[in-house]
Amino acid sequence: MKVIVIGATGAVGKAVVEELGQRHEVITVGATSGQHQVDFADVAQVRGLFAKVGKVDAVVVTAGLLHFAPLASFTPEQFYVGLNSKLMGQVNVALVAQEYLNDGGSITLTSGIVAEEPIRNGASASMVNSAIEGFVRGAAIELSRGLRINVVSPTVLKESMDSYGPFFVGFEPVAASRAALSYARSVDGAQTGKVYKAW
Amino acid sequence: MKVIVIGATGAVGKAVVEELGQRHEVITVGATSGQHQVDFADVAQVRGLFAKVGKVDAVVVTAGLLHFAPLASFTPEQFYVGLNSKLMGQVNVALVAQEYLNDGGSITLTSGIVAEEPIRNGASASMVNSAIEGFVRGAAIELSRGLRINVVSPTVLKESMDSYGPFFVGFEPVAASRAALSYARSVDGAQTGKVYKAW
Ligand SMILES: NC(=O)c1ccc[n+]([C@@H]2O[C@H](COP(=O)([O-])OP(=O)(O)OC[C@H]3O[C@@H](n4cnc5c(N)ncnc54)[C@H](OP(=O)(O)O)[C@@H]3O)[C@@H](O)[C@H]2O)c1
Ligand SMILES: NC(=O)c1ccc[n+]([C@@H]2O[C@H](COP(=O)([O-])OP(=O)(O)OC[C@H]3O[C@@H](n4cnc5c(N)ncnc54)[C@H](OP(=O)(O)O)[C@@H]3O)[C@@H](O)[C@H]2O)c1
Repeated sequence: MKVIVIGATGAVGKAVVEELGQRHEVITVGATSGQHQVDFADVAQVRGLFAKVGKVDAVVVTAGLLHFAPLASFTPEQFYVGLNSKLMGQVNVALVAQEYLNDGGSITLTSGIVAEEPIRNGASASMVNSAIEGFVRGAAIELSRGLRINVVSPTVLKESMDSYGPFFVGFEPVAASRAALSYARSVDGAQTGKVYKAW
Repeated sequence: MKVIVIGATGAVGKAVVEELGQRHEVITVGATSGQHQVDFADVAQVRGLFAKVGKVDAVVVTAGLLHFAPLASFTPEQFYVGLNSKLMGQVNVALVAQEYLNDGGSITLTSGIVAEEPIRNGASASMVNSAIEGFVRGAAIELSRGLRINVVSPTVLKESMDSYGPFFVGFEPVAASRAALSYARSVDGAQTGKVYKAW
């Protein structure tokens, strides 16, 4: 299969590229790194990316910013950071991917454990991750040509504990290589509308 | 209790006002109707509303636009209709309400069954309703002074079958008066972070 990974150079993405690269041709995309660059929050840039890359069999997204702050001081603008980046960036990719995926191809997005297990400063993370999972449930029943869409919800990665550890006391971190297996199940499997919990 | 209902003149809101009005002093708010007018998508207007009304014991929101369209032709701009109105309108109210609720007071938002049970043309509804439920899970653990936040997820109302019926074939509609009981459970009860399913 030909697989495009957007966010390929990140903590999650690197492990996904390594896992999928064992069986598939992987095209790496980042904001400033990778074989192609895109700001996925801008649907025109997403269109440009797919126009260059052409038809693919699977699209994986492992990118997206979230703002973390105490609820008492959270502003609407800060909620829009995650809505514009992690949520609509991934939705932009899914919308455009519909036209560039071969029959039976798949889209795999990324949410996170905070959708279900809230943490302090995480109101936007709970919102945005839940929104992505809702979008996937909604989109799965409408995709045509046997196209599939799923989402992987990782817990905090072992590799990210230096930066995120203090937010996730008591959460058992997962190795990126193990989280990457969920992306493989989505890409190589046959399910759709599913949330794969990598925890 | 003094309760403010935003969306008080709508199909859901009218029934909520009737139910809560049996025990509580209800202040009705709409976009163009009710005792006060507000566009809740504009946080400045929400601040203005609460500055006028002052301290309350409960805030209920039964308002919010969503765009419905086939996934194949859905645009990012159309997804932002629901994000700016139903999602961020309710989040704006919750953020401002934190400052105007008396100790132990509550916030009750509105999602909808499509969060869990997708329908054709409903990708934005599944996304936005799930986002609201995620926000409520996240916010509940951070509210101070015993403040609570819940969300009611109604199925389609009997009263709305003329307009929404064709989207909800096979769904058992609920009477608005019965859906309103879930709002009463949230306002008069003691739970927080809960999704009340009115189906
Ligand atoms: N790390 C964790 O423990 C963890 C756990 C659960 C969920 N997640 C979620 O997984 C996603 C990836 O996290 P991560 O820790 O792997 O992030 P990361 O290490 O910061 O990597 C982010 C990746 O996304 C790319 N990127 C950033 N902005 C972009 C944009 N506007 N358009 C396209 N690509 C963009 C980056 O490219 P450049 O390097 O070129 O900027 C990089 O490849 C996030 O949404 C995060 O919330 C992470
Ligand atoms: N009806 C159903 O079957 C059903 C089922 C599940 C979920 N829901 C959800 O419940 C919510 C209410 O639905 P509904 O059918 O009761 O709607 P509706 O009959 O159209 O009533 C909407 C209410 O919200 C107010 N409103 C509209 N825009 C507003 C704004 N920008 N700022 C503040 N208030 C605004 C309206 O005021 P004006 O009248 O002055 O414009 C009205 O009071 C929606 O989010 C809907 O998705 C409805």
